Order: sequence, then C-alpha cells, then structure tokens
Amino acid sequence: MFSHVLICPKREVKRFLDLTAEETSDLWLTAQKVGRQLESYHKASSLTLAIQDGPQAGQTVPHVHIHVVPRKGGDFEKNDEIYDAMDEKEKELKEKLDLDKERKDRSAEEMSQEAEEYRKLFL
Amino acid sequence: MFSHVLICPKREVKRFLDLTAEETSDLWLTAQKVGRQLESYHKASSLTLAIQDGPQAGQTVPHVHIHVVPRKGGDFEKNDEIYDAMDEKEKELKEKLDLDKERKDRSAEEMSQEAEEYRKLFL
Repeated sequence: MFSHVLICPKREVKRFLDLTAEETSDLWLTAQKVGRQLESYHKASSLTLAIQDGPQAGQTVPHVHIHVVPRKGGDFEKNDEIYDAMDEKEKELKEKLDLDKERKDRSAEEMSQEAEEYRKLFL
Repeated sequence: MFSHVLICPKREVKRFLDLTAEETSDLWLTAQKVGRQLESYHKASSLTLAIQDGPQAGQTVPHVHIHVVPRKGGDFEKNDEIYDAMDEKEKELKEKLDLDKERKDRSAEEMSQEAEEYRKLFL
C-alpha cells in the first residue's frame, strides 16, 4: 500500500462539524493539494479521501483528520480493504499519542527519508 | 442504516482534484451543513464523510460526490461495513443513471415523503 497521509487543522478540534468555515475550506484545499502531489508522486490514478467524524464512525483520536490515500488498480484485493488499512492508521496514531504504550517506531533513518521526500513534495 | 446522502457540485466534474478552490470550499461547507442537520435529525452521534475519487478508489459515477452518513453506536456490526453500504449506494447511483438497466424504484409516495422531510431540513 502507498503512504497514507493524515491532514489535520492546527487548532485542536474534535469534530469536523465544529470547524469554522475558514478552517473547513483550508483543510480541504490542503487535502486537495496534497492528494494531487501524492497521486502524481506515486503514479497512482485515484484517491480515497475520508473523515471518520466522531467515535461511532471509527475516529480514535479526538482531533479532526482527513485520510488521504493514493490508489492504483489492484492495490487491494477488494476495494474496501482500504478501510481496514485506515483503521490500522487510526490505531497507530492513537498509540503514538499514548505515551504509556510501548511501540516500535520505524528506524529514525526510514522516517527521516520519508519526511525529506514529502517535504520536497509539499513545500 | 440511516439515510445516506450524496452531495455533488452543480458543474459536472469527474475528479475532486479538478474542482476550483471555490467549488471545493462550497462543496465541503455544504457537506458540513447537511451533516450537522442529518446527525441531529437522526439523533446520531458521528458521521462518515468520504470521497471515492476516481475509479480505482471505487467511484462508479464520473461526477464528484461526497458520501455523508449519520452514524450511531451499533449501527453496523463492524464499523467497516459502512463502506460496503457506500459501494451499494454507488451501484444504485450508477443504475439510476443507466437508462437501459431495469430497476425497481421505491414508490413515488415513499420518495416524495423523504424528499419533503429533507427539503424542510436543508432549505
């Protein structure tokens, strides 16, 4: 699967419904820009964009975030498996924010390399 | 499952990436407004908001549309079943637009009643 990017507003807001009009526009214009770059970078042909807005929709971290995932034919055996991957990403995010929980990070080198490539891409 | 609403821009555009900044803002501010009303109307507590942007992401009708679905605890046995429901809705939309395909509409009365309730809600 391709790199999965989460986009969130700077202000810590729990629900998408609670964003101001300006924040909503900024958030989605950013998602559009990031999606365009990601799709081109990964030579993909589609995107999955989703907000799980509230715990009953699968949101595990109470700070609005958009999932942006570049898609290619045959990247998942069944299209809906993308949403299991989305849940995995939610869990990772939650564990990352949970300081009591032990987790194995990717190596500093791996993360630094990805961050560097994405920096060139988006900035 | 609750009523599932699709929101699309007036201009027929295939990809979310191809909307202008103004269309993107309008589309998501509308989704936010509709989501707020739907959630309250159905006494739900969360929302699923998603765009399947391009055929490889599960888009079946080449006109940008956002899926907005009010969510409640226990509405699906597994959270991800919502995405199967989303695919069903994509198929319905496609069949509705395919004039050669026979389909059984809901009764005029059923549709008129739902349209009337939603008109009061959103206008």
